Amino acid sequence: MSKPRVLIAGASGFAGALSARIVHRHPDLELTRITSRSDIGARLDSIYPRHRVPLALEELDLDGLDGFDAAIVAYPHGAAAPVVQALSGAGLPVVDLSADFRLRDLATYAEWYGDHGAPELLDEAAYGLTELNRPAVQGARVVANPGCYPTASLLALAPLARAGVVASAVIDAKSGVSGAGKGGADFTEVSENFKPYGVDGHRHLPEIEQELRAMGATGALTFVPHLLPLDQGLLASCYVELSRPLDAEELRGLFDDLYADEPFVEIVGEPPGVADVRDTNFCRIHPRLEWGGERAIVFSAIDNLWKGAAGQAVQNLNLMLELDEAAGLDR
Amino acid sequence: MSKPRVLIAGASGFAGALSARIVHRHPDLELTRITSRSDIGARLDSIYPRHRVPLALEELDLDGLDGFDAAIVAYPHGAAAPVVQALSGAGLPVVDLSADFRLRDLATYAEWYGDHGAPELLDEAAYGLTELNRPAVQGARVVANPGCYPTASLLALAPLARAGVVASAVIDAKSGVSGAGKGGADFTEVSENFKPYGVDGHRHLPEIEQELRAMGATGALTFVPHLLPLDQGLLASCYVELSRPLDAEELRGLFDDLYADEPFVEIVGEPPGVADVRDTNFCRIHPRLEWGGERAIVFSAIDNLWKGAAGQAVQNLNLMLELDEAAGLDR
Amino acid sequence: MSKPRVLIAGASGFAGALSARIVHRHPDLELTRITSRSDIGARLDSIYPRHRVPLALEELDLDGLDGFDAAIVAYPHGAAAPVVQALSGAGLPVVDLSADFRLRDLATYAEWYGDHGAPELLDEAAYGLTELNRPAVQGARVVANPGCYPTASLLALAPLARAGVVASAVIDAKSGVSGAGKGGADFTEVSENFKPYGVDGHRHLPEIEQELRAMGATGALTFVPHLLPLDQGLLASCYVELSRPLDAEELRGLFDDLYADEPFVEIVGEPPGVADVRDTNFCRIHPRLEWGGERAIVFSAIDNLWKGAAGQAVQNLNLMLELDEAAGLDR
Amino acid sequence: MSKPRVLIAGASGFAGALSARIVHRHPDLELTRITSRSDIGARLDSIYPRHRVPLALEELDLDGLDGFDAAIVAYPHGAAAPVVQALSGAGLPVVDLSADFRLRDLATYAEWYGDHGAPELLDEAAYGLTELNRPAVQGARVVANPGCYPTASLLALAPLARAGVVASAVIDAKSGVSGAGKGGADFTEVSENFKPYGVDGHRHLPEIEQELRAMGATGALTFVPHLLPLDQGLLASCYVELSRPLDAEELRGLFDDLYADEPFVEIVGEPPGVADVRDTNFCRIHPRLEWGGERAIVFSAIDNLWKGAAGQAVQNLNLMLELDEAAGLDR
Repeated sequence: MSKPRVLIAGASGFAGALSARIVHRHPDLELTRITSRSDIGARLDSIYPRHRVPLALEELDLDGLDGFDAAIVAYPHGAAAPVVQALSGAGLPVVDLSADFRLRDLATYAEWYGDHGAPELLDEAAYGLTELNRPAVQGARVVANPGCYPTASLLALAPLARAGVVASAVIDAKSGVSGAGKGGADFTEVSENFKPYGVDGHRHLPEIEQELRAMGATGALTFVPHLLPLDQGLLASCYVELSRPLDAEELRGLFDDLYADEPFVEIVGEPPGVADVRDTNFCRIHPRLEWGGERAIVFSAIDNLWKGAAGQAVQNLNLMLELDEAAGLDR
Repeated sequence: MSKPRVLIAGASGFAGALSARIVHRHPDLELTRITSRSDIGARLDSIYPRHRVPLALEELDLDGLDGFDAAIVAYPHGAAAPVVQALSGAGLPVVDLSADFRLRDLATYAEWYGDHGAPELLDEAAYGLTELNRPAVQGARVVANPGCYPTASLLALAPLARAGVVASAVIDAKSGVSGAGKGGADFTEVSENFKPYGVDGHRHLPEIEQELRAMGATGALTFVPHLLPLDQGLLASCYVELSRPLDAEELRGLFDDLYADEPFVEIVGEPPGVADVRDTNFCRIHPRLEWGGERAIVFSAIDNLWKGAAGQAVQNLNLMLELDEAAGLDR
Repeated sequence: MSKPRVLIAGASGFAGALSARIVHRHPDLELTRITSRSDIGARLDSIYPRHRVPLALEELDLDGLDGFDAAIVAYPHGAAAPVVQALSGAGLPVVDLSADFRLRDLATYAEWYGDHGAPELLDEAAYGLTELNRPAVQGARVVANPGCYPTASLLALAPLARAGVVASAVIDAKSGVSGAGKGGADFTEVSENFKPYGVDGHRHLPEIEQELRAMGATGALTFVPHLLPLDQGLLASCYVELSRPLDAEELRGLFDDLYADEPFVEIVGEPPGVADVRDTNFCRIHPRLEWGGERAIVFSAIDNLWKGAAGQAVQNLNLMLELDEAAGLDR
Repeated sequence: MSKPRVLIAGASGFAGALSARIVHRHPDLELTRITSRSDIGARLDSIYPRHRVPLALEELDLDGLDGFDAAIVAYPHGAAAPVVQALSGAGLPVVDLSADFRLRDLATYAEWYGDHGAPELLDEAAYGLTELNRPAVQGARVVANPGCYPTASLLALAPLARAGVVASAVIDAKSGVSGAGKGGADFTEVSENFKPYGVDGHRHLPEIEQELRAMGATGALTFVPHLLPLDQGLLASCYVELSRPLDAEELRGLFDDLYADEPFVEIVGEPPGVADVRDTNFCRIHPRLEWGGERAIVFSAIDNLWKGAAGQAVQNLNLMLELDEAAGLDR
């Protein structure tokens, strides 16, 4: 049986290029075409030597989709929706890396991103935080791949939120520069520096809030991102006021119940560093209690480009195509 | 009139060496002697070329203190107390960079550091967070220079704590590597990494708690330090549950009342980055409100070696010697 | 007597902004106006908080130059020449940070930069490598401030070139990112990376060659710049085939003869690191011999923004205005 | 047929731990035991989380070698020789990562490292620069894995040296910090810094010289290493005086003849960056000419821990065990 042929639309950005690399080395997928809105004709390995993907970027031809079995879309927010719609309309399972199908409320979407290009698809798109939403992903035609901050934050807080014990929460998150995309930051502004940003409102907050509320979290939620002087890596330090005290055993039980069998979640006894998960699809989590069990602290580390973007995209695609969920993700 | 002659005991560590540099360039102080328990005979500018202090390290001679008018002690915790006692006993005003005189409760001190070498001095030592304790510093014979984390955290929270509105607080702090002292961290463990540390209890927590409680803060206090992949710089992101809602004007008023005339505190309209204060004695603070004024966020950035150690030491010494408080600190 | 009033044209780039900072803190100069072609109205301390220059950027008005006594121009190559001409024509001593007056040969200039905007000024502009050209700088109306690579390389090689012993040379140079100017490099391309660049021809090569040839160097000259993953700092490793063998004493003598009395050149016994000179106007040089004295290696470290740009500009301006050459440069 | 069972002696250092990771994921090898002289009982994934090798470190038992088919030794120089001898004596093919069997001349070895622990093995050990010495490696019982600097330098210079055109050479090399091994460098000394080191003589020089002379290089050879502020990556910039002029075609031919079919050598048209080869076993080389073909410049980039140590060790082990040379090395 031949391998599913994958089209990656928007492969010249960080997440698209890494998706191409993962699919290119994937034992059960074939990277058939990579497209870009710029850099057409350039080989991807000339732009990203380290990925060593020896294909040239082509123009996206939405009339010539016969040769493909699935697609990953890595377009900017807003530009992605119509492309996802066209690819999905042609019958391809699609994982979308943009924010276009993450928010279920059109008004909230409009507030952050403007008009939506394909609102009719919103209802059927599955939110692709794999571990928390596996059944929906498996049956979906379109998967909205989560943002990097929501991925780390929600994996950290889900066991508590689902248990109904989150009375309020603070998420103090720190990300490497690649999260901002190509051209996202001048070296001289980031190097030897560290600062909060987006404090007047970050696009990832409504996504986090939507999912946490749906899981049962109540009370005030605060989310503050900071920019780390490194390329890849994201740590979310989550501080939770609990609605009732927990003891260590119960806390551990909540995390084990949800994650014990997960191939890409590691519950560990020490706070994780972002280097522990670099260039991997793992999320590494350390939960602990303070103040007699009335306050929980959960640290959660991912590689923002892997589990926070391209890695999780392939994890989702594996599920949609009924492959081994971990295939190509190098555990 | 001749300038006060300053002895720096323990000048081969980061904070002691920077103290030597600041005093060496100080217009109104004379750096007369620098001592070390190791490296005796070595010139400081061979160990720290950048500081360009052309003096050799000598052995500390506690019987030959006639030629000095003041001292800065930069010994490790525990080792400092007897030296401070001897220097103070010889009549010298002393600024101590260690933790030995920061905690007023002997039992708390013992829990973190062991036996205290000069408990009788505890009562008269002033806590040298200059802006919050200026009168005590001015009249003190011994000043306990605060830790770097307490300096940033307390300057951030003092306006709220003194107003009696801190119902609980989370301090998520991030520091550069120099805070750990010489040999504090392997490059390969820190570079391209970011992680929490000291989560089972950091020595700076009792110091922060002692001062915040004295200012009136109530409820749970959480303090979590993280290690940044950079040399100098510390950011404290402080999340405060307020006991009553504040509006923006009242918030701003609380910070202005306390800091408007301070030479080294900058209240700014955007979150500060640690690069904004690098190699300076400034603390740069940005307070803001969330959730209808029920939650405050205060960001506070310092250079951990300057305002968090050597800079504040000289600021305190200036006060003790009735010099211009900002002299030698290059505003 | 009032202090000379200085205009800085083009203060929003790295070198212009640092010039503004140095002049603002200078004991014998007054920073009277800073201009920019963009960012007009913005305060410099909002763009560069660390420099703490509390002036707003204004438009350059070449008809209103009465209130100034000197100028520093930090315009891009090509754009600088007409501005320098206008300021000089109005009688102001000018230090120009661009390449416009560095090359004495118009054809060579044209090859690298295009048409020259003020060729008639070329002859009278002094090449401002202060230590090697002090008399000309002192009497000049226009000083062409050298590039950062030429500054480090020429200070390293001048003692050998002037002695007539350079038979051929390789300059393997490494610079921090700020040398490329604002927006010069994406963090993600530079961080955790190191690579040569400009190998098909770097604009600094003709400048280096012009000066070395004039000093008497013969044979092949190779210059290769590399990009370091850090902000500020430049190291030139110079490998010289000598036309006759030297011994250690003669080598040391050549460097001492030229630099023993220089306030900003340090001849040292160990290879310098760029951190040794960061944020200073020093050039730190270590010469040594190999292969029986037939090959010399000279390491030379500067801060590319200080001695390689703004620091040397103020050093030259001090000379032009008959001030202490080291004033404001914080030795 | 069962997979060869591999013992790694000295798996707690950087190169040994990475060897363990590569063998652990190798499709045709079984990582059977990892040993250490310290850290016995600790799991390797607690020391190096990122490698995810779930084995515990054991004591090396030289009397219990029945269960193994091959060994990699990652002991310090001097300590390796007797261990290699014992393992080889028990019939195991051994790749040794230390310098103990790299130098063929005992006196030269003694000058740099002291007495040799197993001089009788020197003659039969093959120098494991795979691409240049494949036949010897294939038949060897002991392979001396080259140092990181020699690997990059020799791959860069071999095509010229073998053609007999190297009249003299300068190797200006720059390495990341991991090359110095665990605990090799304080963060605060390396970060934001860059400097030459080992200028009075680096242990890799006699290794480079031995091999280059054997290939036919003549004249003066200079090798200067510098320390880069990054973890992994090594660039050698090689400047060669040619004994006769070459043209571009001949130059390219020399490199293609030697490397066109090599799985891990990439000859490229632009200077490589160390990020291009990070976490890979590739050596990426860019040769070019200057001065009418009388001078060649060759840039060569490797990951010092992969092609410069553990990656090449597995490449050699693959050859010794008659496996696919590239197996487990993730091309």
